[in-house]
Amino acid sequence: MIEAHVQGEILNQALPYIQRFRGETFVIKYGGSAMRDPRHLRLVTRNVLLLQLVGIRPILVHGGGPEIDKWLQRLGIAKRTVNGLRVTDDETMEVVEMALAGRANKALVAEIQQAGGQAIGLSGRDGALLVAEPISEELGRVGRVAKVNTSVLATALDGGFVPVVCSVASDHQGGAMNVNADSAAAAIAGALHAAKLVLMLDTDGVLGDKEAPASLISRLGADQARQMIANGRASDGMIPKLEAALAAVEDGVGGVHFLNGSTANSLLIEIFTDQGIGTMMTR
Amino acid sequence: MIEAHVQGEILNQALPYIQRFRGETFVIKYGGSAMRDPRHLRLVTRNVLLLQLVGIRPILVHGGGPEIDKWLQRLGIAKRTVNGLRVTDDETMEVVEMALAGRANKALVAEIQQAGGQAIGLSGRDGALLVAEPISEELGRVGRVAKVNTSVLATALDGGFVPVVCSVASDHQGGAMNVNADSAAAAIAGALHAAKLVLMLDTDGVLGDKEAPASLISRLGADQARQMIANGRASDGMIPKLEAALAAVEDGVGGVHFLNGSTANSLLIEIFTDQGIGTMMTR
Amino acid sequence: MIEAHVQGEILNQALPYIQRFRGETFVIKYGGSAMRDPRHLRLVTRNVLLLQLVGIRPILVHGGGPEIDKWLQRLGIAKRTVNGLRVTDDETMEVVEMALAGRANKALVAEIQQAGGQAIGLSGRDGALLVAEPISEELGRVGRVAKVNTSVLATALDGGFVPVVCSVASDHQGGAMNVNADSAAAAIAGALHAAKLVLMLDTDGVLGDKEAPASLISRLGADQARQMIANGRASDGMIPKLEAALAAVEDGVGGVHFLNGSTANSLLIEIFTDQGIGTMMTR
Amino acid sequence: MIEAHVQGEILNQALPYIQRFRGETFVIKYGGSAMRDPRHLRLVTRNVLLLQLVGIRPILVHGGGPEIDKWLQRLGIAKRTVNGLRVTDDETMEVVEMALAGRANKALVAEIQQAGGQAIGLSGRDGALLVAEPISEELGRVGRVAKVNTSVLATALDGGFVPVVCSVASDHQGGAMNVNADSAAAAIAGALHAAKLVLMLDTDGVLGDKEAPASLISRLGADQARQMIANGRASDGMIPKLEAALAAVEDGVGGVHFLNGSTANSLLIEIFTDQGIGTMMTR
Amino acid sequence: MIEAHVQGEILNQALPYIQRFRGETFVIKYGGSAMRDPRHLRLVTRNVLLLQLVGIRPILVHGGGPEIDKWLQRLGIAKRTVNGLRVTDDETMEVVEMALAGRANKALVAEIQQAGGQAIGLSGRDGALLVAEPISEELGRVGRVAKVNTSVLATALDGGFVPVVCSVASDHQGGAMNVNADSAAAAIAGALHAAKLVLMLDTDGVLGDKEAPASLISRLGADQARQMIANGRASDGMIPKLEAALAAVEDGVGGVHFLNGSTANSLLIEIFTDQGIGTMMTR
Amino acid sequence: MIEAHVQGEILNQALPYIQRFRGETFVIKYGGSAMRDPRHLRLVTRNVLLLQLVGIRPILVHGGGPEIDKWLQRLGIAKRTVNGLRVTDDETMEVVEMALAGRANKALVAEIQQAGGQAIGLSGRDGALLVAEPISEELGRVGRVAKVNTSVLATALDGGFVPVVCSVASDHQGGAMNVNADSAAAAIAGALHAAKLVLMLDTDGVLGDKEAPASLISRLGADQARQMIANGRASDGMIPKLEAALAAVEDGVGGVHFLNGSTANSLLIEIFTDQGIGTMMTR
Repeated sequence: MIEAHVQGEILNQALPYIQRFRGETFVIKYGGSAMRDPRHLRLVTRNVLLLQLVGIRPILVHGGGPEIDKWLQRLGIAKRTVNGLRVTDDETMEVVEMALAGRANKALVAEIQQAGGQAIGLSGRDGALLVAEPISEELGRVGRVAKVNTSVLATALDGGFVPVVCSVASDHQGGAMNVNADSAAAAIAGALHAAKLVLMLDTDGVLGDKEAPASLISRLGADQARQMIANGRASDGMIPKLEAALAAVEDGVGGVHFLNGSTANSLLIEIFTDQGIGTMMTR
Repeated sequence: MIEAHVQGEILNQALPYIQRFRGETFVIKYGGSAMRDPRHLRLVTRNVLLLQLVGIRPILVHGGGPEIDKWLQRLGIAKRTVNGLRVTDDETMEVVEMALAGRANKALVAEIQQAGGQAIGLSGRDGALLVAEPISEELGRVGRVAKVNTSVLATALDGGFVPVVCSVASDHQGGAMNVNADSAAAAIAGALHAAKLVLMLDTDGVLGDKEAPASLISRLGADQARQMIANGRASDGMIPKLEAALAAVEDGVGGVHFLNGSTANSLLIEIFTDQGIGTMMTR
Repeated sequence: MIEAHVQGEILNQALPYIQRFRGETFVIKYGGSAMRDPRHLRLVTRNVLLLQLVGIRPILVHGGGPEIDKWLQRLGIAKRTVNGLRVTDDETMEVVEMALAGRANKALVAEIQQAGGQAIGLSGRDGALLVAEPISEELGRVGRVAKVNTSVLATALDGGFVPVVCSVASDHQGGAMNVNADSAAAAIAGALHAAKLVLMLDTDGVLGDKEAPASLISRLGADQARQMIANGRASDGMIPKLEAALAAVEDGVGGVHFLNGSTANSLLIEIFTDQGIGTMMTR
Repeated sequence: MIEAHVQGEILNQALPYIQRFRGETFVIKYGGSAMRDPRHLRLVTRNVLLLQLVGIRPILVHGGGPEIDKWLQRLGIAKRTVNGLRVTDDETMEVVEMALAGRANKALVAEIQQAGGQAIGLSGRDGALLVAEPISEELGRVGRVAKVNTSVLATALDGGFVPVVCSVASDHQGGAMNVNADSAAAAIAGALHAAKLVLMLDTDGVLGDKEAPASLISRLGADQARQMIANGRASDGMIPKLEAALAAVEDGVGGVHFLNGSTANSLLIEIFTDQGIGTMMTR
Repeated sequence: MIEAHVQGEILNQALPYIQRFRGETFVIKYGGSAMRDPRHLRLVTRNVLLLQLVGIRPILVHGGGPEIDKWLQRLGIAKRTVNGLRVTDDETMEVVEMALAGRANKALVAEIQQAGGQAIGLSGRDGALLVAEPISEELGRVGRVAKVNTSVLATALDGGFVPVVCSVASDHQGGAMNVNADSAAAAIAGALHAAKLVLMLDTDGVLGDKEAPASLISRLGADQARQMIANGRASDGMIPKLEAALAAVEDGVGGVHFLNGSTANSLLIEIFTDQGIGTMMTR
Repeated sequence: MIEAHVQGEILNQALPYIQRFRGETFVIKYGGSAMRDPRHLRLVTRNVLLLQLVGIRPILVHGGGPEIDKWLQRLGIAKRTVNGLRVTDDETMEVVEMALAGRANKALVAEIQQAGGQAIGLSGRDGALLVAEPISEELGRVGRVAKVNTSVLATALDGGFVPVVCSVASDHQGGAMNVNADSAAAAIAGALHAAKLVLMLDTDGVLGDKEAPASLISRLGADQARQMIANGRASDGMIPKLEAALAAVEDGVGGVHFLNGSTANSLLIEIFTDQGIGTMMTR
């Protein structure tokens, strides 16, 4: 058991961080394997609630590839990808939306409610929060966020609710579109000039060299990130995340954090202690 | 084409009705075949928006049996009913929630957004809006609404949004429950002391005798409704609707309207003109 | 009797117009023979109330020449005009103010109250709403509006009241001045950047040629109006109305409508249906 | 010229009175010969403005018999009274309303505006402020106030305006009624639970004996007032004023002051100094 | 150095405590030797700020006997006590007020400001916050709190300031009175129906037997406290503190905590962790 | 005794002054011998309250040299001055702060409370209201105001309290600093763009020639004041006051008044009557 004086000291050390971030908006992209483990889910949602209670305005954004894959498989619909993007015909889109807006989103909401918080689950179709345009004809309903209508977020946050947003957008006719969750989170963070965008990963952060597990980068400049994409040092999975992060800082987001969602309380450690873990990117 | 003077006169006649209902809450249960026809869908959502614009606070509640059936069938999950209620094991519940909260709900939201309104789609798990308890062990996750937390509705309405609520509730542990949409609408109307609960049907209203199509009842007293249930004159499909309506008026709802969802603009005709259509039940 | 489905359809068609004008200010100049007919009076006040109930901020402005003439005649005071303007010595001004602010204004207010609305009757001396300067020594207390103090209108509108304004202004010493009601309405509309100024007439709108009753103009550009004044095609009675309308659009009013006050519900038809009647002038 | 130190001392002495009455409502019935003298008019309106500026909510109520008489005479309409009340047929009522709501009311409003204040002139028909019922068939449109709708007063006061109310009421159909100004002021004061009702007279206050000019009463109990009415010591003109005052204190008004409107600054002297002048009645 | 995961876990564990106390008022009596040690002072003020940042409304109350003694000695004024209370003649009172309101109070305020917070220093004379009556003639200006005017506290708290209150009160004539700081804190807590009153001591809490250092009581019922006073088990120094605590719980304060002010972060440990330290008294 | 009509007239004459200053901020530096005379103290605080009651936002600023001197003497601490400024070592600073923030400040607050007002006593350390930097090493803790944080003043004023501020500032580490009260008042007035700064003196205003008692200047231009300082016509005691006044008008303060604090009601006479007394400086 941790001694009382240690507990007191750690709480005390959080003071300057709370003072700094009070009233600021944080967009937290949650996903990966951490989202499927009930223990991690429980921790992350509680961490988010704690942010809210100390005066931060947190927004939780999530995707849900494995949940989608499970249902596609059960329905006997073949998964097809082009350049790592899921080809999304109308039938696939129905499954994507059901899995994300119907299951994953509401499970996250329920977890926050069980922790004593208040949450509203949203898709990008609610309040036309995310309006997307198709990337290519070949990819079908895969889109890129073209517009963010933030009024539904403001209504939820001002009412004391944590908005939980899934990566489904609206097209210009109101139809559903499949968007990348990292990009969606970055677009929302940019539109709100958030103080921080947090991207939760299955790894501890950004590696300087994808081949070198020990090459974790603590602080990453935007230029350095662009080079890593250009020179191939970034892994395939990391590239879209770096691009989302770059878009966010260009839109005026204060900083982007890459954290391991499976590390207990990584969000609190990164935000409220001297011991940054993971990678922090600034402009 | 309708002559201008007729148009003017009809608009003019709406004045006293608008004066009467300004600031009041209306809960509208939408469903049945009208919901699957894009033309009706388009009309009903616009009718609801018009209510909002003249100062009424409308809440749209919906189920979606056919959508659920479609996906169960495609997944090869057998549908089983006991006393007309869908036996809902955990796997079925996942499909119910996906179909309702993921598909039907967001399609309704998108329709309102396309009409120039603002909508937020909610399940009973958002803000723990609907908390349900199981009806029987045999029926699995079929529940009866035990508590309504209205704060998420107030937040949405005060923010200028039309809340669109699907008939999925939360159990006490945050898990999903399958509830009857008519009952859910009645519970919400009761909790908010709504001026009106509107139940949209596939028929023109309540028949005095289920065997006599011409026996439509215009005004129905609560006692008369109880008798119809007791003496078997109410059809099997109508009984749960009558029970929901009775519960609502007992909770202080001003009146319950049974309207044909496929009759164009039935909502506007019933609320804003002298020509009531359908059936109206009062205490 | 109009069929129910027609009624519903017409109400439904009002939706986009209500959405467009919500929160906007409309200034409606009411007058002419329509004002002396209790049936028309009743309709127009109810039409104005309906505007208010759907979220528009209506202001009613009126004159009252016949009422003034009646009292002058009974008092044995000769009416004298120069260029169509009533020469207004101090004694005449007393009668003008009494007839307008004391009789016509309060009768309109009472009509709105009887229809279930809330109204406040104002002259341009209340809150120094209209400050006027003399046009010429010869005309005495005939003035041109030089300043509009809108705070009394904002107080009334924000309190849920329909302001009813008569065409009496204040001079710089607080004395009463006789101003043209069309000009007063235009000045108020301009000061408030109203979306619409509506001028109610005894005819159906602006004629392209004063000699040709069938030459009603539906849409009238500002330049065209200026030409009609210049080339003598506008009737003597229409010229000051066109000038008031021109002043309004130059001050940023969205549009000016010329409507027949004796056509039942002309206000609702013009604002809420596809069937514009009368003449609409825009910049 | 008054010495500076005297000026300072007098201002200083006003402190406890201002503290006591801050936020309270005062209803001031203004009338009599003081109202027709521009110098008195000027002083009284400025006194009322000063009340407003130190945080009191003043409402000015007035009649205007001489103004009415002047116009009736000029129109050749005979004045007829029954028990001292003006028999008011429809034609007379038109003249009463014009003279009061159209002339006297607006002149008072203009005076306040000229003094740098903000005023709204109201008749009892505005916002249905005063609803009256006929006293007898014989008297025609002479009424007794049956209901006071205070919302128009609250709107004006909260907006920073001094409401100026003339003694014209509305009947249940919206028609104009002639009411006694003292009674109207008392009814308004009672409805608002005013701290004070001030009745301005042509004399210095209430005399203990109408035959004895030196018998001015400084403080008058309600019972004493009732006795004076009963035993005939009150003059004919004073009786209705005493009855209005009694009605006010019975409705919870804090005190009623009878002041000479022609004594310069009598309002300020009575409210803000130790030297009460006139008569004060309390329950 | 504490490991990151420990830090995260401790922060995470604070969640339910923050949820419970959000919006509640805490009155914290600070004093004793902890107040004279700059390191403790620094910690306590930061702990108080942390309470404020998580949504608690903290009020800091303090005395300052040693500071008073120092100045009395330097001024050559003899200290005299009766039953442990400082006899406070007028001259002594001047010194008491100067030392408390002038020095100790402002030093605490400055400490909070240096920590990035906002504080207002108050004596009981500000806003007549504490009105006291003399205990006995012999004791001079020693008083017992008779009335608490909380408006100055509400103004400060609503403005985002931490009120810092010294134990000087006002008598009924506005003169300064010397009151016990524990009693003052209890009176304020009672008047505000605070959730908690925290009394900071030089010891670890209440001992079951003043002779037995190991007899620390974790939870203390009100009856038990009364017995301890009655049967002499409570130490002389603890008796007034127990009496203050009893008065507080009788006035509806949720709980009273006795904490060692010299234990680092004792406030945070007691409020935000499972490991209560010190003594907690409830009704 | 002053006659009633005189009283009324003087009150009436205050109207335009009240209208002009309503909602404006006045900073009043109070001090000198007037502050030590209970009769003057009583008058000045009541004058300030009257300002507040007519809608002005008054802030009272004070020093207290004699009170400081008294305590220094009693403590046997020698007073040392350089160029007329009190050399303030740490020990002296403790006494200065105690005497000002602990005694003089609270006595003023109590006086306002006794007069029925609400006051909060502040030092420059509360809310870091006044942040000062040292003037020279030799003078120790004598400072010049470098920054004014007005939020504590706004909180107090908006809450209905009169802020009473003593001339103690905070250094950048939160320590106490001794600042000139005239300069502090000028800095506060400048930061708030006050309408008026009032400096209360022991003399009747600024003399044109320090040697000529009859040379009182009624209106003083800023340039003229600069010349008086340059050419030695200003007395030694007046120079810092003139410099403070010049700083204030340069910062946008509307006007600076030099008044004799011992002249009864000088504040009211200067602000609310035609008879300015004392000296008024404008830009």
